[in-house]
Amino acid sequence: MSHPLKETSLRLRGLGLTGPAVVLDGPRAHANIRSMADRAAAAGARFRPHFKTHQSGAVGKWFAEQGVQAITVSSLGMAEYFAEFGWTDITLAFLLNPLELPRLATLAHYLDSKGGRLGVTLDSVEVAGRLADARLPVRVWIKTDTGYRRSGVAWDNLAGLGAVASALGSGADLAGLLSHTGHSYGARNRETLQAIWDSAVERMTLARSAFGPASGLALSLGDTPCCATVNSLAGVDEIRPGNFVFFDLMQREIGSCRDSDLAVAVACPVVGVYPDVGRLVLQGGAVHLSKEFLGSPESGCVFGYLGTLDSGGRSLGKVLEHLPVTSVSQEHGVISVGRETYGRHLNELAIGDLVLVWPVHSCLSCDLHRQYHTLDGQVLPRR
Amino acid sequence: MSHPLKETSLRLRGLGLTGPAVVLDGPRAHANIRSMADRAAAAGARFRPHFKTHQSGAVGKWFAEQGVQAITVSSLGMAEYFAEFGWTDITLAFLLNPLELPRLATLAHYLDSKGGRLGVTLDSVEVAGRLADARLPVRVWIKTDTGYRRSGVAWDNLAGLGAVASALGSGADLAGLLSHTGHSYGARNRETLQAIWDSAVERMTLARSAFGPASGLALSLGDTPCCATVNSLAGVDEIRPGNFVFFDLMQREIGSCRDSDLAVAVACPVVGVYPDVGRLVLQGGAVHLSKEFLGSPESGCVFGYLGTLDSGGRSLGKVLEHLPVTSVSQEHGVISVGRETYGRHLNELAIGDLVLVWPVHSCLSCDLHRQYHTLDGQVLPRR
Repeated sequence: MSHPLKETSLRLRGLGLTGPAVVLDGPRAHANIRSMADRAAAAGARFRPHFKTHQSGAVGKWFAEQGVQAITVSSLGMAEYFAEFGWTDITLAFLLNPLELPRLATLAHYLDSKGGRLGVTLDSVEVAGRLADARLPVRVWIKTDTGYRRSGVAWDNLAGLGAVASALGSGADLAGLLSHTGHSYGARNRETLQAIWDSAVERMTLARSAFGPASGLALSLGDTPCCATVNSLAGVDEIRPGNFVFFDLMQREIGSCRDSDLAVAVACPVVGVYPDVGRLVLQGGAVHLSKEFLGSPESGCVFGYLGTLDSGGRSLGKVLEHLPVTSVSQEHGVISVGRETYGRHLNELAIGDLVLVWPVHSCLSCDLHRQYHTLDGQVLPRR
Repeated sequence: MSHPLKETSLRLRGLGLTGPAVVLDGPRAHANIRSMADRAAAAGARFRPHFKTHQSGAVGKWFAEQGVQAITVSSLGMAEYFAEFGWTDITLAFLLNPLELPRLATLAHYLDSKGGRLGVTLDSVEVAGRLADARLPVRVWIKTDTGYRRSGVAWDNLAGLGAVASALGSGADLAGLLSHTGHSYGARNRETLQAIWDSAVERMTLARSAFGPASGLALSLGDTPCCATVNSLAGVDEIRPGNFVFFDLMQREIGSCRDSDLAVAVACPVVGVYPDVGRLVLQGGAVHLSKEFLGSPESGCVFGYLGTLDSGGRSLGKVLEHLPVTSVSQEHGVISVGRETYGRHLNELAIGDLVLVWPVHSCLSCDLHRQYHTLDGQVLPRR
């Protein structure tokens, strides 16, 4: 079998797939986990990976097997889900929603009863006061804005940081300062990522100094672009990257992963072939890939690239940049590449074949599916 | 209570909401259904609404109560779901995926046993041949491209249309030609929509004429922008709009609905307040709203507008264009409007309040939630 897309289709059909489905290269994900764990260990930082990317108890187990004991989540529901899988040291790295306090209290007491701890995140005097009044067994992180400008107390607002800590008083344990440098997603080279990281570490260190030399407060930092690329993760107490377990085209564009690190792709059936106009139509739209794109409406949006399976179907393969998904609607994905490119690369494909689409943002694409299909035939459920 | 956002928050909390949730104005949806049913009836066209927008057995029942007997869906799973709710006349208006033929056969026989019929859509000789070989009790629609250029046999490719019909032979009943004028979503006024509609009807009529004067073939057409605005729906045998049941900001921008037709919004908790920089942060991101936007990265993206409840909480209310959701990440929505606008409109809001966000594309936002909350306190599940 010489045509790589045709061979890929056959291998995907061998997995029993008939409709849009996330295909997961387990060994790549394992390697990504190991690599990030090693980077954290080398810096003496706790590895507290964010589980919002995979949202799967089964994939979580792969982290546990590599020694991970502490995790990060972005919603209370996600925390409850992973608690059911035996995780007891969970940080909810999303600003505390006071409307969820009763549910949060139940989970906090449950984790406490298991010898674990729920970490919560907040950035206001009001919420700190309400949490203190509730007297819960939680560990509190003050969200600190080191430059992303989404949420948090500004790193140089030392009075503000102190006021939040004071409002907690003795009502809850203050763990430290937590920041997310989401502006790293705008970077396109390692120098910029290093500068974002260095600046954030410096700013958090300065902010912590306002609490005095013996505060014992920890610093929690670390998105995937920075954590995957900076020279050293030293200077913080823990890192919380998430996307690195799978990576995606966005990380590839940023420069934080290699093609051989990409661990998920979405299998999509071909449902329409139009060689005369150079267009292929997939069952694979916004409800399977999300509407995240690279490029721009002006330069041309890319909602994914076609890919291949390698090694006889045992691993994910190449990124075919000449075969972009150029538009998506609710259920359709369109690959409009012109007659010439179509004739050269897509002519072998027929309706009923399966293609692989590399997602732009794996967190969002995986969130749209209920399970993962590994290349060795396992089906791993997701919350 | 004088502050509309504060009153809205209180009413939403009265519904028992604590996290992101879709709020549905039932009377508005009923009125939207009635209005479209009336338009179809006035033109003598069968009303076969697309159920991909709501994907709810309970909302589907509202259509049945208004006399609707035939529906459209966009996936086999959706067809199976609605069959369980008693619908027996279902058109799957998505190109037939041959990999799903065994499942499709089961559903086709089931609907046949109930005196109903499964409609399927295709645009190739190959798939027509495979379907004919399967000898299923289905009604076949040939997907016809009248200008959208996504899928279908080109309307003026009369030989192509004839070849597909010939490949079906006596193996399956040919119902007619089906087209989707999705380019209507690029229109911004009624004249353009009327022109798109008129052109599509003319082209389909010409295409049908190739089958001879006694072919008895039906024409199926009709997206929400056209169906909601054109002078008359005469000229086709059935219409298949879907979004009109809820409408959204996209339809509002196109000009196909009034503010008082918008029937769903997403309730989101306020989790961060930053009056000094004019920013409000919501628990309400890409996994609750989708990443669909109005505007452009250059002019400023709008991922939703804040809204209000009116009539003492009994109906959805105003669209607050001065309060846009300016960015979304996985779980966060950010309303960054500057200090002045914030001071004038958002100062009353506190962490733990609930706001309403009008979605840009209701089909995609609703697809991200598992249920609807009506303003009279019902919870309606979704598939």
